[in-house]
Order: sequence, then structure tokens, then C-alpha cells
Amino acid sequence: PLIAILPGDGIGPEVTREARRVLERVGDFTFEEAPVGGAAYRETGHPLPEATLALARRSDAVLFGAIGDPEFEAIERSLRPEAALLGIRKELNLFANLRPAKLFAGLEDASSLRPEIARSIDVMIVRELTGDVYFGEKGHRKTPEGLREGHDLMRYDEREVERIARVGFETAMRRKKRLCSVDKANVLETSQLWRDVVIEVSADYPDVTLSHMYVDNAAMQLVRDPGQFDVIVTGNLFGDILSDQASMCAGSIGMLPSASLSGEGGRGMYEPIHGSAPDIAGQGKANPCAAILSAAMLLRYSLGMAAEADRIEAAVAKAITDGARTADLGGSLSTTAMAEAVLAALA
Amino acid sequence: PLIAILPGDGIGPEVTREARRVLERVGDFTFEEAPVGGAAYRETGHPLPEATLALARRSDAVLFGAIGDPEFEAIERSLRPEAALLGIRKELNLFANLRPAKLFAGLEDASSLRPEIARSIDVMIVRELTGDVYFGEKGHRKTPEGLREGHDLMRYDEREVERIARVGFETAMRRKKRLCSVDKANVLETSQLWRDVVIEVSADYPDVTLSHMYVDNAAMQLVRDPGQFDVIVTGNLFGDILSDQASMCAGSIGMLPSASLSGEGGRGMYEPIHGSAPDIAGQGKANPCAAILSAAMLLRYSLGMAAEADRIEAAVAKAITDGARTADLGGSLSTTAMAEAVLAALA
Ligand SMILES: CC(C)[C@H](C(=O)O)[C@@H](O)C(=O)O
Ligand SMILES: CC(C)[C@H](C(=O)O)[C@@H](O)C(=O)O
Repeated sequence: PLIAILPGDGIGPEVTREARRVLERVGDFTFEEAPVGGAAYRETGHPLPEATLALARRSDAVLFGAIGDPEFEAIERSLRPEAALLGIRKELNLFANLRPAKLFAGLEDASSLRPEIARSIDVMIVRELTGDVYFGEKGHRKTPEGLREGHDLMRYDEREVERIARVGFETAMRRKKRLCSVDKANVLETSQLWRDVVIEVSADYPDVTLSHMYVDNAAMQLVRDPGQFDVIVTGNLFGDILSDQASMCAGSIGMLPSASLSGEGGRGMYEPIHGSAPDIAGQGKANPCAAILSAAMLLRYSLGMAAEADRIEAAVAKAITDGARTADLGGSLSTTAMAEAVLAALA
Repeated sequence: PLIAILPGDGIGPEVTREARRVLERVGDFTFEEAPVGGAAYRETGHPLPEATLALARRSDAVLFGAIGDPEFEAIERSLRPEAALLGIRKELNLFANLRPAKLFAGLEDASSLRPEIARSIDVMIVRELTGDVYFGEKGHRKTPEGLREGHDLMRYDEREVERIARVGFETAMRRKKRLCSVDKANVLETSQLWRDVVIEVSADYPDVTLSHMYVDNAAMQLVRDPGQFDVIVTGNLFGDILSDQASMCAGSIGMLPSASLSGEGGRGMYEPIHGSAPDIAGQGKANPCAAILSAAMLLRYSLGMAAEADRIEAAVAKAITDGARTADLGGSLSTTAMAEAVLAALA
């Protein structure tokens, strides 16, 4: 199988390099790399060059590092690093973003939550990824009074909601069969449609217990009692906020992977939930575990290699219980040394 | 001065009754009550009757209980209890919502955060309250393919952003002079305008250190290290989510008040940040402290009675350190008994 690696910006190259080493240890893959984000803009003048997109399209799966570079924060939106990430998601139709949040045994101290509460977290957030206010018509204009105005249209249609709702229900079926749909239906019409459609889809999943929660309450409950959640399904914007919050509840953001899927065959893109961390880029300090665990998700969801995925996940867990720690976990291992610890545990 | 009391739904009547008793103890006020929310709909067929709005307009300040009733979740949006709250905010031009989050000494155990982290929280969230996707054009329609679609327009103009930014900077000037503006400028044009205008306004406040944070990161940082924040200024939707999250980090949502101000004279509405809690309504279990502390904010911001506000806040703090606890705080005091404890501390 062909795995495309898009290292991107900041710590992206450092962590995907280690994830690749782990992949090489468990199977026989062809790898091709291409630039993306600020790195690609520097090389080619565009954050998502044609060749990079073409590679992503013809590969069996994409391993993505991170994008974002303070240098490009003020340039035209379509040329910013983020545009590359949004562009790939849209072009490959990666509408379903799966973000597990779970505390690794031994990392109780890394969470700000009380240990007994942090330990209770085991939630999968299913975030819609190609719609919502992210992709609605947007721009600047003048109001009738001549004032500058910025606007972005939030919208979902029933087909978009239905397909992500199904991913939510299917995910719940493979877990504890509890699905919480998060919206703001007391204020937003987009959310009202969301809720209506989720309820319609629920008829096909009688074994799943469906609940609904307003997003403000969900942000509260993820702090108060995160153990109450099994699977959360929500829109692009709310999913962006809640999944980052949940991951921090579970301890270090350096430990958590994500999968972005299209539902067509095994097509998918896999990336750490952390960003490009420009402040520590190039210093060999970054935690490679989120990238390594993203590679495990890649094996499971895109290549049908569940046994190998299990092995990698077990190796990361073992390295952690054995005491391996990068700086974000309060230790002093380098990126490479942390990866070595995982490779040793894999052997 | 005339204080309008709008008790609303669920536990609203129970907690505003106690707040009124506390107000009566510290000054000479005229009180008038009027129904709002589901309670008003039951009585009059509308959640915000003309008479209620008129009372709010002619009073010197409004003390609001809570709204929300599961019975009315499925009726037409304009007749739901929430429409009353949104309606008053808009009609009275209450564009600035101040939500302090701080842990009361003695309530360390009520927070899910580690005690040392919970103790570090002392943040004021300044939330814009009359714009954003809450009030943009919204509705249902069919897409060209005939699919049901829900849509809500997110928008801000420069005047709306400027006035709330000024409230943010002024608030920071009275505190630690640090203002963090939260947006999603890497994706949203509304946020880009927000950020541009906040930066423009900052020129008038050279003593305030301004920073910017994306909302997903802010949700993460409020868990990781909430002590880093002094004042946060943000839009209506992000403020809704982050302020509920912050309040839960600080312990019980039953302890936190809010003020909604118009910037015109002292006009304002004051309400607990908690909801109507239908599950415990009428049982005398609700914590009245958030309503009592809202009454204190009312004295401070609308009636210029800062000394009396201080006294009430000190009395609540003393009742807590003396061990008074309602069920939400792990105790067994009734709503009335908790208020008695505050009144005793006030004496
Ligand atoms: C970088 C940004 C555009 C992106 C998003 O908001 O989707 C990121 O926060 C994420 O969650 O993957
Ligand atoms: C009840 C609801 C409309 C309201 C809001 O979203 O503003 C509430 O959550 C609040 O924060 O006051």
C-alpha cells in the first residue's frame, strides 16, 4: 500500500518521521512525501500544491503532520497554511473526523482534572468536517450604514447531517451504544435541522441510546463528569471546540490522534490533534505519540490492519507505563528517544 | 429605585425570592414582579408579554431568575422560553454580558480540577450578547436539490465589535490589565473583522496587554491553565460555550452570577448563569447563591451601591467558609436555609 506523508509545518516533520519508523516496523509500505501548509507555500507559492493533492488522492491513506506558521497569519486567507488542511478535507470529502480522548494509564498527573475524574474519560468525538460555518459563504462587505462587516454562513442540509449521524451511530454500536448529539437547537435553525435528522436516523439504530445536549452544557459536562460520555456526534465548529477541550481533560494533547474519513472505501487522513507548535519546532522536544497513534488509526481504518494497530497502541501504552516521558508529560526524552521507547515496547 | 423581578421557570422563582430577601436587608427598594419564559407562555400565550417588557424598560434594573421548560422544547421558536431571554437582551440593548468565574474558598472539592488549579481561576468573561449567529438571519429552506437545509448567518459589524471591545478593555483596566480576545480568525471572516477591530481599539488602551487566542485553544487552556486569564472578550456564541466551561472549572454553577449591560446609564439585567433546572424545581433544593450574587452585581453596576454589593459578596463567602452547603455543593441545606446562612453572615 502507498502511504502519503504530508509533514507540514513546525513539529510536523519531526513527529511524522518517527511515526513512519514505527509503520516500517509493522508492515511493508511504500511512502511518498509532499509539502503542505506554510512549508509548501515557501517552496511553491501555494499551501496545497497540485502535486500534493494528487499524491493524497492516489495514495491508500494520508499521514498528516501539522500546519500553521505565525509568519503567514496575516496573508490572504486562501494562501494561509490552514487553507491547505481545509482544502484536503473538502477535496477528499473527508466528512467524518474521529477524535478519541482517553487517559493513558500512568499519565494521571498530566491532566488538570482530579485523577479519579480524568481516569473516567473514554469518549470518541465524531465531528462533521466538511460543512457548517467553516464552508458556508463568507466574506467582508459594507453594511447599508457603511460599516465594515464580516460574515460567515452556518448551514447544514439533511444529507450532510444524515451521513455523519450514521457514523456516530455506527461508532456507538461498536462501543457502549450511547450517543450524545451536541447542538444549540434552542437558538440555531441549523441545529434544529441537525437534531431533527439525528432523531430520524436513530430509528435505524434501536440499540443505541440517543441523547441531546446543548453545546454550552456539553462544555460544562466535559469538565464536571466526562465519564458520562461514550460517543459524541456534533458539527464542525462545536466539534473543533469540544474535541480540543476533551483532549486536554484527558491529559496531554501530545498523546491524541485523529482520523478523517470519507466513508468511500478506506480513504482517510490521519493526524495528531496537536498543532505545529512553532515554539518548540526543530528542537527534538515534541511528543511523537500522537503521530504514532495516528499511524495506528491509519492501519485500522484505511488498511484493514487491526492487529498491527492494536500492537502499536499497546506499545505506546507500555512505553508510558514503563516511564517514557517527553517534556509535555513532565519528562526529558527527545522526540527520537520517545519513539525508540515505543519501538522497544513493540519488539 | 425600582427593581423588576422576572422569576421565570423552574428554580427561577425559588432563587429570586431569596435574592429579594437579601436585597431588602441592605436597602430600600420597590419591587415589581412579572412572568417570563414558559411561565408567561402558560399565563398569557407569549413568553415575553408586553407588560413584562414594559416593566423591564421602566425599572432601574432587572433581576432575572431562569428560563427553560422541557414542555416547550418543540413549539415554534418564537414562542419558546428562550425567545423571551433573547428578546429582552435585544430590546434593552444589553450587549455586554459579564461573567466572572472564581472559586470560593472552601469549595475546592466542588471543582473537577485539581485544587491548586481550581484555586488559580479568577477570570472575567466579557461576552457580546446581541449579535453574532444568535441574531443573524436564520431559517429553513430547500436546497436546489430539494434537500431540507437549516441556516443561520454569523455576522458582526465594526460598531458592534468596537463597543464590546471597549467593555473588555475597560474591565481589564480595573483588573490585572490583561485582555485575551478569543476568536476563530483562522477560519471565519467574522472573526477576522473581530480581531482587526479589537486591535484598532487597543490603541486607546496602551496599558492593557492584549493577546489573541483561537476558540479551540481557549477551551483547552481553560482546562490546562485557567489561571493564565484575567479578562476574556469574545463573541456571543464562543462566550456562551466558554463561560459555562469556565464556571464549571471554578466549581459549582450554582455559585456564579452574571450581568448584562447596555452601556446606557446603569441599565442592566442580572441573572444566575445556571438554568431553570426542571429536575429539582419546586423542591427547595436549589442553591440561591448565584441569584444572591447577581443581586450584588445589580447593586454595583446599576444602582451605584458598591459598598452594599461588597457586603453581600462577603456574606456569601463567609457563609461558605462557615460550612453552609446546598446539595450541589455536597451539603443538605435547603434553598431557604442557605439564604438564611447568608443573611446571618450579613448581620
Ligand atoms: C487549523 C484549523 C483550521 C483546524 C480546524 O479548526 O478545523 C484545527 O483546529 C483542527 O481542529 O483540525
Ligand atoms: C438559554 C440560552 C438561549 C442562553 C444563551 O445561549 O445565550 C443561555 O445559554 C445563556 O448563556 O444565557
